[in-house]
Amino acid sequence: MALYVQKFGGTSVGSVERIHAVADRVARSRAQGHDVVVVVSAMSGETNRLTSLGHEVAEEPSAREMDVLLASGEQVSVALLSMALTERDCPARSYLGAQIAIHTDSNHTRARIEDIDVTSLRADIDAGVVSVIAGFQGIDAEGNLTTLGRGGSDTTAVAVSVALGADECQIYTDVDGVFTADPRIVENAALLERLTFEEMLELASLGSKVLHPRAVEFAGKYGVPVRVLSSFGEGPGTLITTEEGTMEKPVVSGVAYSRDEAKVTMLGVPDIPGVASKILGPVGKANIEVDMIVQNVGADGSTDFTFTVKREDYAKAIRLLEPLKESLGARELIGDDRIAKVSVVGVGMRSHAGVATEMFDALADESINIQMISTSEIKISVVIAERYLELAVRAIHTTFKLSDGQLMEE
Amino acid sequence: MALYVQKFGGTSVGSVERIHAVADRVARSRAQGHDVVVVVSAMSGETNRLTSLGHEVAEEPSAREMDVLLASGEQVSVALLSMALTERDCPARSYLGAQIAIHTDSNHTRARIEDIDVTSLRADIDAGVVSVIAGFQGIDAEGNLTTLGRGGSDTTAVAVSVALGADECQIYTDVDGVFTADPRIVENAALLERLTFEEMLELASLGSKVLHPRAVEFAGKYGVPVRVLSSFGEGPGTLITTEEGTMEKPVVSGVAYSRDEAKVTMLGVPDIPGVASKILGPVGKANIEVDMIVQNVGADGSTDFTFTVKREDYAKAIRLLEPLKESLGARELIGDDRIAKVSVVGVGMRSHAGVATEMFDALADESINIQMISTSEIKISVVIAERYLELAVRAIHTTFKLSDGQLMEE
Repeated sequence: MALYVQKFGGTSVGSVERIHAVADRVARSRAQGHDVVVVVSAMSGETNRLTSLGHEVAEEPSAREMDVLLASGEQVSVALLSMALTERDCPARSYLGAQIAIHTDSNHTRARIEDIDVTSLRADIDAGVVSVIAGFQGIDAEGNLTTLGRGGSDTTAVAVSVALGADECQIYTDVDGVFTADPRIVENAALLERLTFEEMLELASLGSKVLHPRAVEFAGKYGVPVRVLSSFGEGPGTLITTEEGTMEKPVVSGVAYSRDEAKVTMLGVPDIPGVASKILGPVGKANIEVDMIVQNVGADGSTDFTFTVKREDYAKAIRLLEPLKESLGARELIGDDRIAKVSVVGVGMRSHAGVATEMFDALADESINIQMISTSEIKISVVIAERYLELAVRAIHTTFKLSDGQLMEE
Repeated sequence: MALYVQKFGGTSVGSVERIHAVADRVARSRAQGHDVVVVVSAMSGETNRLTSLGHEVAEEPSAREMDVLLASGEQVSVALLSMALTERDCPARSYLGAQIAIHTDSNHTRARIEDIDVTSLRADIDAGVVSVIAGFQGIDAEGNLTTLGRGGSDTTAVAVSVALGADECQIYTDVDGVFTADPRIVENAALLERLTFEEMLELASLGSKVLHPRAVEFAGKYGVPVRVLSSFGEGPGTLITTEEGTMEKPVVSGVAYSRDEAKVTMLGVPDIPGVASKILGPVGKANIEVDMIVQNVGADGSTDFTFTVKREDYAKAIRLLEPLKESLGARELIGDDRIAKVSVVGVGMRSHAGVATEMFDALADESINIQMISTSEIKISVVIAERYLELAVRAIHTTFKLSDGQLMEE
């Protein structure tokens, strides 16, 4: 008898059939004696359709009204799922963000949750009713509808779990859980049974699409166990929890990658204070997200300054920096929009100095040249030419023995 | 400088282009110095789409959740219209039924408005902001979403007008206003400049689709002037107001009809008390709406009992009554599902006995047999064979000189 918050994304409620499948699953958890609170996203495609509609009507749609528009998406799915549950003799009750109430700040289209009133949810649990909550949306202090932006429904699910003190926040997706590497690239990638929040955070940021970093961060802050599992299969998925709860950790948990990267390099910049901000200032102002930054000091008192951006921002970044070249006294502005980033992640590497060497060796054995390196406490990332991406991921995966059955040996 | 509540139906906001046209019209009223509060329906087709979706998910969808589902329709249109207005430098702000708040009873899918909090609307008017209100929806005392059922958005518009003491409630439709007869049948039908609430009520009930009877009744009760006008054209439309405000009334204002009728007759029923309720009881229990009821006492102590129903209910009504024939001692059960109803409406006929004769003469001149007659204070209805419908409407229209330019002479 546990209390589970179960979150179903857009694909999981994308059609009438899928909604019935979700209702079956929720009803099954109830039949097993668990208390269940559900959070759902808009049916897949709906948020995009509404966004387009807004942009058809106005060039710069009012953010307040955009939130009213988008919030209608989850309204449809909570109503449909509640109907499907009720028809299964599983009493259910839908709640919009405003109804329960999910209080947020007033930053339309990217609001942050401040507080959740769980009175109705508690009453429902006591009465054996499944609360079906619209994810992604809330209400501000003035009663305006707000939406939470990307990863919003995941964040709602975690916030509801925190507010209720749920035993587990279960995020149902279209994959079986988190793997040691992308199974489309590494055939024998293994499903991870457990991960820490920090590891998941690095994996989520690095392109693993299963769980939004914002939700992971939130869950980690409050220590709510999160389980990522398939809404189609029956597996146990991956449990994300604090380090304390885990058994002895493997050094490396997984290999992540990000394909759509580009790098920009300003060659031969005079090595004087303020150069970095002069280069990155205009980039940031143009809302271009910068990921890795590397600066090497040369012998001649000049430096090479390199950073990576999303591939879609590459042309814009080059255009912005071209006029700066002369004023900075730089020798040349070059770039490459055919690069990729590969990373190994694992809390175990904190106390294990050899991981970087092992990783670099694996790449060298395949004659893959490393263009940039960036490290954090639990992550090592390298930039390589995009064409070597799959080869690199497989090589690293093998080196760290991440395949099924090998994890235990580590 | 007046305060107008302007209501736009589903067709008027049925596409991005239409929404822009509505925004232009609202902005124009504002530019003329008027204060405007807007009520909108869901985009045309949307309510049907959502209803189907609900019935796909559940055989008997929970009424509470059906309301949550349907209310998402207007949410989309208020957001889009507010965006379009804001882009025209016409400050606007959307409100859902729950937000302003439109308090209703808890009868899901057919709730009644109990109270409207106009604080926000007043503040908007003072600030020069156009409030854009979602029609058709409200919130009950427990915070559940409700919808008002058929004619809901018209009702919202009237209720908002009453609550604000608006100078006029303007119902924008896809017709130019209310005509003396259906222009598709009577070529020279005239646009009515004015009508009383009672007349409009009879016309609305009789198949004139422009304004829901419920909204007319509401407006009449509180004496809010209602104007029906085209959201595409520029005409003044038809003003519906109390009798006092009108000039000398023509005897007859218009000719209405209803095509989809059927009649059921139980012949030779013993003329004893309780027969009527024995016949109509099962019909009412089966949720079949009965319109006209006529009973004639014959010389032999038996009676013929006839009533009309919607054509779609005809077969069901016959099926229900067949087993009753014997127990009632009736001679025969007969029916006709190819009949139509034609009515003349006008407050003037209260004091004018000759209207019925004139109407019956007009029909006799065309050799149209009258099958049933029913009268109210301001209405006379006859049932005729459906094939004579157009002929009858035209004949009556001509008899009462309702064509353009003739009204003044009456």
